[in-house]
Amino acid sequence: MNPDILKERQSATFDVEKLTHILDGGPEKTRRRREIESLVINDPDFQHEDPNFMSRSERYDLAVKKSAQMILKLREYGIADPDEIYCYKSCVHRDRSAPLDIHLGMFLPTLLNQATPEQMDRFFMAAWNLEIIGTYAQTEMGHGTHLRGLETTATYDPATQEFVLNSPTVSSIKWWPGGLGKTSNHAIVLAQLHTLGNCHGLHAFIVPIRNMSTHEALPGIVVGDIGPKFGFHEVDNGFLKLENVRIPRENMLMKYAQVEPDGSYAKPPSSKLTYGTMVFIRSMIVGESARALSKSCTIAIRYSSVRHQSEIRPGEPEPQILDYQAQQYKLFPLLATAYAFHFVGQYMNTTYHRITGDISQGDFSELPELHALSAGLKAFTTWAATAGIEVCRMSCGGHGFSCSSALPDIYVTFTPTCTYEGENTVMMLQTARYLVKSYRQAQAGQQLSGIVSYLNEAEQRRVQPQPVSARPTVVNINDLASLVEVYKLRAAKLVELAAKSIQQELQHRKSQEDAWNYSAIELVRASDAHCHYVVVKLFAAKLAEIGDTAVHSVLSTLALLYALHGIAQNSGHFLQAGLLSVPQVLQVSVRIKELLSQLRPNAVPLVDAFNYQDAMLQSVLGRYDGNVYENMFEWARRSPLNRTEVHESYHKYLKPLQSKL
Amino acid sequence: MNPDILKERQSATFDVEKLTHILDGGPEKTRRRREIESLVINDPDFQHEDPNFMSRSERYDLAVKKSAQMILKLREYGIADPDEIYCYKSCVHRDRSAPLDIHLGMFLPTLLNQATPEQMDRFFMAAWNLEIIGTYAQTEMGHGTHLRGLETTATYDPATQEFVLNSPTVSSIKWWPGGLGKTSNHAIVLAQLHTLGNCHGLHAFIVPIRNMSTHEALPGIVVGDIGPKFGFHEVDNGFLKLENVRIPRENMLMKYAQVEPDGSYAKPPSSKLTYGTMVFIRSMIVGESARALSKSCTIAIRYSSVRHQSEIRPGEPEPQILDYQAQQYKLFPLLATAYAFHFVGQYMNTTYHRITGDISQGDFSELPELHALSAGLKAFTTWAATAGIEVCRMSCGGHGFSCSSALPDIYVTFTPTCTYEGENTVMMLQTARYLVKSYRQAQAGQQLSGIVSYLNEAEQRRVQPQPVSARPTVVNINDLASLVEVYKLRAAKLVELAAKSIQQELQHRKSQEDAWNYSAIELVRASDAHCHYVVVKLFAAKLAEIGDTAVHSVLSTLALLYALHGIAQNSGHFLQAGLLSVPQVLQVSVRIKELLSQLRPNAVPLVDAFNYQDAMLQSVLGRYDGNVYENMFEWARRSPLNRTEVHESYHKYLKPLQSKL
Repeated sequence: MNPDILKERQSATFDVEKLTHILDGGPEKTRRRREIESLVINDPDFQHEDPNFMSRSERYDLAVKKSAQMILKLREYGIADPDEIYCYKSCVHRDRSAPLDIHLGMFLPTLLNQATPEQMDRFFMAAWNLEIIGTYAQTEMGHGTHLRGLETTATYDPATQEFVLNSPTVSSIKWWPGGLGKTSNHAIVLAQLHTLGNCHGLHAFIVPIRNMSTHEALPGIVVGDIGPKFGFHEVDNGFLKLENVRIPRENMLMKYAQVEPDGSYAKPPSSKLTYGTMVFIRSMIVGESARALSKSCTIAIRYSSVRHQSEIRPGEPEPQILDYQAQQYKLFPLLATAYAFHFVGQYMNTTYHRITGDISQGDFSELPELHALSAGLKAFTTWAATAGIEVCRMSCGGHGFSCSSALPDIYVTFTPTCTYEGENTVMMLQTARYLVKSYRQAQAGQQLSGIVSYLNEAEQRRVQPQPVSARPTVVNINDLASLVEVYKLRAAKLVELAAKSIQQELQHRKSQEDAWNYSAIELVRASDAHCHYVVVKLFAAKLAEIGDTAVHSVLSTLALLYALHGIAQNSGHFLQAGLLSVPQVLQVSVRIKELLSQLRPNAVPLVDAFNYQDAMLQSVLGRYDGNVYENMFEWARRSPLNRTEVHESYHKYLKPLQSKL
Repeated sequence: MNPDILKERQSATFDVEKLTHILDGGPEKTRRRREIESLVINDPDFQHEDPNFMSRSERYDLAVKKSAQMILKLREYGIADPDEIYCYKSCVHRDRSAPLDIHLGMFLPTLLNQATPEQMDRFFMAAWNLEIIGTYAQTEMGHGTHLRGLETTATYDPATQEFVLNSPTVSSIKWWPGGLGKTSNHAIVLAQLHTLGNCHGLHAFIVPIRNMSTHEALPGIVVGDIGPKFGFHEVDNGFLKLENVRIPRENMLMKYAQVEPDGSYAKPPSSKLTYGTMVFIRSMIVGESARALSKSCTIAIRYSSVRHQSEIRPGEPEPQILDYQAQQYKLFPLLATAYAFHFVGQYMNTTYHRITGDISQGDFSELPELHALSAGLKAFTTWAATAGIEVCRMSCGGHGFSCSSALPDIYVTFTPTCTYEGENTVMMLQTARYLVKSYRQAQAGQQLSGIVSYLNEAEQRRVQPQPVSARPTVVNINDLASLVEVYKLRAAKLVELAAKSIQQELQHRKSQEDAWNYSAIELVRASDAHCHYVVVKLFAAKLAEIGDTAVHSVLSTLALLYALHGIAQNSGHFLQAGLLSVPQVLQVSVRIKELLSQLRPNAVPLVDAFNYQDAMLQSVLGRYDGNVYENMFEWARRSPLNRTEVHESYHKYLKPLQSKL
């Protein structure tokens, strides 16, 4: 153990294990997680070379191999709980995506949700046993977030009782589905249904794409890999061009909508049946933001405790870089953010399951709020985490740029969450739509419930005006409850400004739609402030649940830092709204510096509490024992370029060049 | 040509070619640049497959091959002007780094600057003719920015008249030098010189590391590649461990410092002789920030003009995504930033050459200011550009994540500039040191000259206090000169706050050094504000040089957007300092939206003016003709994973799995 990092652990003011239990959701969950992790980490079948040393084809190959082994082992061990499967899978693939993810996470669930009993008989067991390997082909080259724009067609032919699928344009080629390129032999294809001369919008069709015994593409199918990406090297994201591909009528997923043999169409009972899945995935992504950021903080903070650089006082030894205020200012607010997002992720998960229970009993009342919240928080947390990972990487200096740090890999694996499952700006605007609607209801005197109820309060304050200058004095910047309040008032103010912007644009004789578009900046800002408020509020609420005094104390410091740092970063909003005075903003800066010093002795213990095993982190810089340099040297020597002493390019180009000059 | 992008070009209000001339520095420079670009682009020797489809070893191989060809061709064509060589090289390697960069850019120049005539005879022609291929080995695994901390030793042995070089610890292993891993046979090694029992600090030594005919590592040399990185795949950044390596006394670079045969030491006349190179490289990086950001904007803005998505008005066709205000708000401020940085880069280049002239005539007076400016602007521009590239990438939705967009490659190639040649936070603190020193001089009544002279004005204002509330009314947010003024006052205010923070910390009985460290947040912020002021000021100054009315008009709009966007992003500072009132900040938001609309018809012409040829951009999304989708499909089909119809992993893992389930 590196003596610096040992010393860091000795300075902890709290019991790290207790905090780990809180993060996992209880000691039993910690125990079980570790048990599952050990199953993978100690399994000789899952030992392999660092993927950073492999070509993309080798990485894909390895991922398929591991997925195949995983499926056998999960069944062998009888692991069936979805959370436990997720944990096992994360370990196997080290939080990277894998070629069979869409088969397991989308193809099978879609069958369960949308297939008729007869279709279940035909497809489910074959898919369960991997004879059918499927993907979910929705996005097209020219169409992403806006589903109505999809161009792929499925035209019913009553003569043969078949659907004829086509990609009528280049932009309609299916693009991006994971596992489509090389792995799948079936795809659930989303296409515009045409029957008897009418278009009935998007429906899902099961389309065989590769021969079940040779795995070669079927006639009319043009399928392949879309090529290298920033990350996701293990995944064969694919394209699919359909050229008059005929499938039997019974291959349309018909649990809700149906096409009869004569071509007549029966529409589904509700258009909101897939709502829940979307909300679920976005809620999950909030937790992934916490995970990506907490891993990055673990690496950067551990490394900063063993890295020595420059000098604070001349002549003295080089200090740990974690002793520089500039370094603390980069990392500790991110550490606080990682904790905040973790608790928000827990809340979203709990809320999702509670509301799902309500829905199954016919109560849809909370769904719109959850939908708006999950959209906004998905955007808010992924943007913050994606920027935060890079701050962590750069805080490690040059070594952060090496793949041995694992930070480049964390970044490229995580950053797509800003785009997929709903592009972030579009998500923010969806949340804004809900906020503006709620604001208008409040203005109209309606009593709002749930998290937007503060828009009523704002309305009441407006009715009974207070002098602006009277307000700031009530804010206590050392009191989290008071800060939650001030975040709430900021959100209310920015929602109001966005709504007023729309109003003003309408007065310039713009249409509703143009007025909306010309208020997009204010709308995104309002959503952002709303989400920020929710995060601070949920962090504060979590503190109330924590019994252990020492843990409570350190988490309170983190929560305060999170809240004050957010104010410092957005001080213009708080000043503009008259919520804080200029002296208070200066006080915030001073307080932040105190909190950084206060957190300093607990920094390494706080990342230890995330409890990432070295085998999971796969980061030389983030090693638990802090022995960075010797292991970096050992890692470098395994680089593929070191397999030969002299690279062939020397004989091919450099040697001959000398004789020509 | 895609009709959308054609229409965009027809809406230009200015002559694109004229703006290109301004960017290049005159029509003749544009002509010559294009001539050099054509030499490379039309050269069959430089045609090759997309490196994204290659393994790292293949990419390295290709880069060595191209560098070797480049050297022959440069001599064949007689291209000898440094700017023209740089242009040719950028074309050959498509702005990526290459294995011979350090040989050409550091090894040869260091010989020129620090070798004695006798050493020039021994080494220079051999290096010029690539018999000697050298690198510059400074950073060590455990030591980067803080040079005094370097551990490598060179101990003089008078008995044999040799230096004995050693890497005494793991952390002292040389790490990162480009071209060290596989390419070089010599290294200039920076080591602590020990002679006759005394240590004389860092000196440079020429160390042979590989056999000149077999290219194998020499005895005592452990050398190799440091392994895969986020980017820089073409470069063999290397490690070097020295184990009692003996070199002749004459291999120490002795133009300035000398070790006599008996071991006596003569120190160099000045310690600031390498100052200039550092300043030059940092100034160059400012220009690279502009280049990376302008390429990214070209890609994102062209793509946004041909991409259609969602709907603004129901029932109407999907609009170009460039018509969304949210998209304009992401991209147009970055476009303005790219222009701003381009002009700042031009200024730094001119200033560097002017001051170099002064220095050669013995006038060092402006060097400290240029040093401080280049440090701060290097950090300011690289941070902004690195974040901006990612905004551009994400603004392209999913396709930005594909390597076909070129944006991932631009990012990983550019982002190391935040770390190398002086880590950005350290750079900001260096500039802050100059600012605080200047502030104290101003306080002491000294008259400052140059760019920091505004600190005198602040001092004068303090002496004759004005009511804070009286000031905001003088700011005209539509007048760039007025905005330059307000940026200046903000910088003055933040420098003052930083200096006061140090003062306060000192009062808490802290040492100077601790007071400095505990004011790092304020110091970085002050530097940032100073640099921001300089950029706005230089952009405004550039406008005065532009005669063409139409070009002047569009650049004025960009400059105004740049300035106002910066105010909106940092509104807290301006409000806190009493420089702007709350209504003015609201006005700024409104004005920004007007400017976005105003720039909309010129957006594509403004990126066209950067004049990147398709062969240079290598981006499917950024194609000049806008024909994105068909070319993306064509690109994808060349993906290595598509070389076989069925990937071997199917037969190895998936097929056997089916039979086991």
